[in-house]
Amino acid sequence: MSGNTFGTLFAVTNFGESHGPAIGCVIDGCPPGMALSEADIQPDLDRRRPGTSRHVTQRQEEDKVEILSGVFEGQTTGTPICLLIRNTDQRSKDYSEIAQTFRPGHADYTYLQKYGLRDPRGGGRASARLTAPMVAAGAVAKKWLALKYGTQFRGCMTQIGEIAIPFESWDHVARNPFFAPAADVSQLENYMDRLRKAGDSCGARIRVSASGVPAGLGEPLFDKLDADIAYAMMGINAVKGVEIGAGFASVAQRGTVHGDSPTPQGFLSNNAGGVLGGISSGQDLEVSIAIKPTSSILSPRESIDVRGEPVEVVTKGRHDPCVGIRATPIAEAMLALVVMDHALRQRAQNGDVVPPLKPIPASTS
Amino acid sequence: MSGNTFGTLFAVTNFGESHGPAIGCVIDGCPPGMALSEADIQPDLDRRRPGTSRHVTQRQEEDKVEILSGVFEGQTTGTPICLLIRNTDQRSKDYSEIAQTFRPGHADYTYLQKYGLRDPRGGGRASARLTAPMVAAGAVAKKWLALKYGTQFRGCMTQIGEIAIPFESWDHVARNPFFAPAADVSQLENYMDRLRKAGDSCGARIRVSASGVPAGLGEPLFDKLDADIAYAMMGINAVKGVEIGAGFASVAQRGTVHGDSPTPQGFLSNNAGGVLGGISSGQDLEVSIAIKPTSSILSPRESIDVRGEPVEVVTKGRHDPCVGIRATPIAEAMLALVVMDHALRQRAQNGDVVPPLKPIPASTS
Amino acid sequence: MSGNTFGTLFAVTNFGESHGPAIGCVIDGCPPGMALSEADIQPDLDRRRPGTSRHVTQRQEEDKVEILSGVFEGQTTGTPICLLIRNTDQRSKDYSEIAQTFRPGHADYTYLQKYGLRDPRGGGRASARLTAPMVAAGAVAKKWLALKYGTQFRGCMTQIGEIAIPFESWDHVARNPFFAPAADVSQLENYMDRLRKAGDSCGARIRVSASGVPAGLGEPLFDKLDADIAYAMMGINAVKGVEIGAGFASVAQRGTVHGDSPTPQGFLSNNAGGVLGGISSGQDLEVSIAIKPTSSILSPRESIDVRGEPVEVVTKGRHDPCVGIRATPIAEAMLALVVMDHALRQRAQNGDVVPPLKPIPASTS
Amino acid sequence: MSGNTFGTLFAVTNFGESHGPAIGCVIDGCPPGMALSEADIQPDLDRRRPGTSRHVTQRQEEDKVEILSGVFEGQTTGTPICLLIRNTDQRSKDYSEIAQTFRPGHADYTYLQKYGLRDPRGGGRASARLTAPMVAAGAVAKKWLALKYGTQFRGCMTQIGEIAIPFESWDHVARNPFFAPAADVSQLENYMDRLRKAGDSCGARIRVSASGVPAGLGEPLFDKLDADIAYAMMGINAVKGVEIGAGFASVAQRGTVHGDSPTPQGFLSNNAGGVLGGISSGQDLEVSIAIKPTSSILSPRESIDVRGEPVEVVTKGRHDPCVGIRATPIAEAMLALVVMDHALRQRAQNGDVVPPLKPIPASTS
Repeated sequence: MSGNTFGTLFAVTNFGESHGPAIGCVIDGCPPGMALSEADIQPDLDRRRPGTSRHVTQRQEEDKVEILSGVFEGQTTGTPICLLIRNTDQRSKDYSEIAQTFRPGHADYTYLQKYGLRDPRGGGRASARLTAPMVAAGAVAKKWLALKYGTQFRGCMTQIGEIAIPFESWDHVARNPFFAPAADVSQLENYMDRLRKAGDSCGARIRVSASGVPAGLGEPLFDKLDADIAYAMMGINAVKGVEIGAGFASVAQRGTVHGDSPTPQGFLSNNAGGVLGGISSGQDLEVSIAIKPTSSILSPRESIDVRGEPVEVVTKGRHDPCVGIRATPIAEAMLALVVMDHALRQRAQNGDVVPPLKPIPASTS
Repeated sequence: MSGNTFGTLFAVTNFGESHGPAIGCVIDGCPPGMALSEADIQPDLDRRRPGTSRHVTQRQEEDKVEILSGVFEGQTTGTPICLLIRNTDQRSKDYSEIAQTFRPGHADYTYLQKYGLRDPRGGGRASARLTAPMVAAGAVAKKWLALKYGTQFRGCMTQIGEIAIPFESWDHVARNPFFAPAADVSQLENYMDRLRKAGDSCGARIRVSASGVPAGLGEPLFDKLDADIAYAMMGINAVKGVEIGAGFASVAQRGTVHGDSPTPQGFLSNNAGGVLGGISSGQDLEVSIAIKPTSSILSPRESIDVRGEPVEVVTKGRHDPCVGIRATPIAEAMLALVVMDHALRQRAQNGDVVPPLKPIPASTS
Repeated sequence: MSGNTFGTLFAVTNFGESHGPAIGCVIDGCPPGMALSEADIQPDLDRRRPGTSRHVTQRQEEDKVEILSGVFEGQTTGTPICLLIRNTDQRSKDYSEIAQTFRPGHADYTYLQKYGLRDPRGGGRASARLTAPMVAAGAVAKKWLALKYGTQFRGCMTQIGEIAIPFESWDHVARNPFFAPAADVSQLENYMDRLRKAGDSCGARIRVSASGVPAGLGEPLFDKLDADIAYAMMGINAVKGVEIGAGFASVAQRGTVHGDSPTPQGFLSNNAGGVLGGISSGQDLEVSIAIKPTSSILSPRESIDVRGEPVEVVTKGRHDPCVGIRATPIAEAMLALVVMDHALRQRAQNGDVVPPLKPIPASTS
Repeated sequence: MSGNTFGTLFAVTNFGESHGPAIGCVIDGCPPGMALSEADIQPDLDRRRPGTSRHVTQRQEEDKVEILSGVFEGQTTGTPICLLIRNTDQRSKDYSEIAQTFRPGHADYTYLQKYGLRDPRGGGRASARLTAPMVAAGAVAKKWLALKYGTQFRGCMTQIGEIAIPFESWDHVARNPFFAPAADVSQLENYMDRLRKAGDSCGARIRVSASGVPAGLGEPLFDKLDADIAYAMMGINAVKGVEIGAGFASVAQRGTVHGDSPTPQGFLSNNAGGVLGGISSGQDLEVSIAIKPTSSILSPRESIDVRGEPVEVVTKGRHDPCVGIRATPIAEAMLALVVMDHALRQRAQNGDVVPPLKPIPASTS
């Protein structure tokens, strides 16, 4: 109820602060009998990890995950899985000044308004560092869904600042620090270098996609699959917009164009983004999110201090000039958690997920 | 868990189908001691009601609300408030053919995949008619929030099909059938008349806004105020995109531009849309949503039937050519329900909502 | 969260007051495809109905149930089932005096302390009349469980006031107004007649039992099957104690006696009452509850009024001299709701409920 | 949903197994601004700790608690509090045989039926060791309630096996290993010594009590305060019965006797146990629970193995001959968690807990 648990039947409770002793999560509801070890989780954590290129924060965190419970002799037991990540690189001295002022666009102000006190070290609980346990939990969900339904999750960056990134191939994504689906990222590198020198930050647009999602997932009226996806995505730090399928482009579409015709050979298009009436159709889930520019920047900004007096704020310390760069594995993980939860919910109400109709073949996307 | 309850502390359980005997909801968690009668609820229902102009469905429904419980001698008692709306105009004969085929872009297909059977009359449970009880529940939330904090909710249409609607004044919204914030809507009327004659449909973009929202509402990490707004909005029928504040425009913004500077006189901008780190800042909440074109259209479409055979589908019956037209009061109501729920949650954890700091004056918007 | 919804995956939201226009409930999570009509529900409501013998309240209520949603062409659709029962016999005049004083042992006092106002007519929301919708919902759960697993629920009275009732046969239960499992109830009738003349009331002890419960239902650590049974039973009006299996007698048992030995032919005893470690074993669930004497009695009592001044209270009106008499169908229904919810939960986490081991045959009880 | 989270607004998610690397919990919803350190928690853990007398298991566990999150500069921040207890004494060799057979009366059988696999080391997740994190969480709740309302929780043993323990004074409880409220416990010591030599076990009856509970806590209809207490208590390992106030004795009481008369000087009795209509009255909460004899005993028992074949089972290892001995601090903690959760729920719905009426003075108990 206090907003630190994600999901209902595959429920992930997240804890920790950026500069506390540890961060982690408890997964409640993982089905028993699945082989699981740290090696299933670490690769996704490594994709999200800071300090891996000059374009992201230089904080050095190994983000080594430890399974504390819920696994016996290499198999999940159906009991809670606690995943722990110790914090190692905490330079708290950088944050002493921040405690007295508010960074424009940062949660500094609202945390203090809400709680009457806050942990200013590295943003405390508001830090994007708290997405690491979700990436870890997402890896568990991904594994179960892949084994059970062959579901696959992929993501990439489609825009950084004002630069749109053409989609060439999923194969490129792992080969550059931007998760860009393009072979040549030199333009992006130059752009980021200039931005960093200017002491400024920029936004990004990320696409995430899931294939092999069974038809029938999602609950009407409220826990619609797309509603829960929107909730999951908007909950990621710095996200300001979410689209499913055609998204905002559907405003100017005609009904004769937007509606994806089903045929015996597959749907003819995917404007729906895989969701109709809040329920998965078996087509690929297609999601796009907007990430705002980082609020912790070196350029001086007009602001106030905790007494309400005007001040100029300059944020030192090690910050991502574009938090969107590391957002791809996070968005993938959140999408996997939503699908996982709904797979279990569907099973509760309707038994094992066997569509009553022969599913329409997935369209090529 | 089956997705028919919205909210946690102000929980609204929705029931009914488009052509069943009745629709309605049960509100659980309304604080006791507030004056409440049907007259507080009916005006918002009337704003959403079908059959009020030639641009919306001609189905005639009075949408008369009846309070069945939770109110004694004109006051809420703190016990569940059941709101009932009897269906009166159910021409089920129009829908006999629909049961055997799938409208492209409609929940027909996914409901059958999920449940193995469905109620085809008027879309059954997938009908936008089920938003009526939410508008009713939203009216209760609006009243409580207005009395307690002076919170006000407003909405308008900002785009229909490819036509952007300039914002002139909130005063115009109630004076035209489109909820347009402009004095002259003749262009919109012509556009809709042409579309209707063409047997086609179009999308729309809606803006909703809330002023007088106390600072401190919203829960980190997951039930962030903006995450719950995204969930609420994406759950409205036909919504494909949600933006908070600058939304997708923030992708191309610089951090020096995006971050709203707080000053003793107020914030200098509202790119955040009233939410920082998932928590309300006291600025106006600003939300924008994309609504896709109606899938029930007269133009023939390529599709399949329930056996998987190719068919041509033409939807007769009385449908909105742009479901976005009636979406404004719905979006307002959903925003009110989210704010209400978070107001109670804040009170649970932090006592009555008294910001520890002097709130920054609201910026003029 | 405000306590008017029972269950998680088979969630029943209850609304109404004793003398309001109607009472009812919304069942969310009933699996689709089950034949359902009012005729499946009415018999259980009739068993609980007031006015059926001189030993219960003389209020005349037909308790006619109406299905408002969730059923199409005689089958559940998987969408919410709203059950409505109109109140017909509301003699509110009887209650005018009650509004100013507190009946000893009644919720009058605590409702006013909690909410600052209350509906005094017939106890308002605190009335045992609100169990009627639960009996209705329980009938739906019973039908599903019977069809799916062959589960059967039975209940009887085992003590009334100081008179223990010997268990002779389940067959007797339906043949007397006390739900007594004995052929001759003349002693009970005389006892109740004397009590009624004395203007007093008495308690009762009720046993409920379920056979055909699959092994594996119940969640450790907290939503144990027996914990949820205790919650359900203690939530019934006037219940002050709950036992599972040997209950309080287990305090004086030895471990060598208490532990039910499993054998290839079945368990040798059922001290556990069908639950081990919070999970069903496949043995019969055995539950016993204590019901306190009715607090609305004709005999004068010492009390205070709403200003805190001493008064003498005498309750007129039509009250059950032993609320336990009508409690048997209520307790059965609540047990069915608990089992139903856990059957769906088990299915969510572990797939369809197929025990990995050959179940031990049920012991004869 | 998988039953490892207790509470709604003060939600405690428990994880770990008896012989895994660690056990612990995450508390979500603790109000911010309360001073908290390990020193507030350790004393209650020490009261529950094994190995403190010859009458309990000889397993040596320090049960040292570590706060991993949610506290900054000695104060709660309103974010999740993770409490970790490392397991140190894990002699897994004792349990190799148990994996193939079922102890009569133990969760061995049902865990395997539910999950298809189980962790047999020390009972795995079914171990009473998992109550330690609840005792830790309870200590946090106790501190908040004491500071806010002056609420105090106490417990004692009132019966062990067939020996009733007279209540002499709360002062004795801390002075003997049984939590007995009596000065002389030599009879209990002899009884336990004989039992241990006989390789058998026995049950116990525990009383827990809370004073200083504000009136108005508890939700009708379902999350009644007493219903949630029953749920909490029945969820403790080995509990088979729960009573509130007069409990089962109320069956034979008359209404003229049972109803506690309120007077300006206080209630004249406390048969209600502090709860009327599911809502606290301001009187002391009075709860009594029945604990069954330990199922892990040295005496040989008739049983079956995992293939269903008959076997004789003898449990070696270090087990409590009466699990009830260490149950008092556990029951206190669970009661505190229930009251805490309802205090926050009351605040959500009704604002800060200020009874509208002058509370009746607590009766002397």
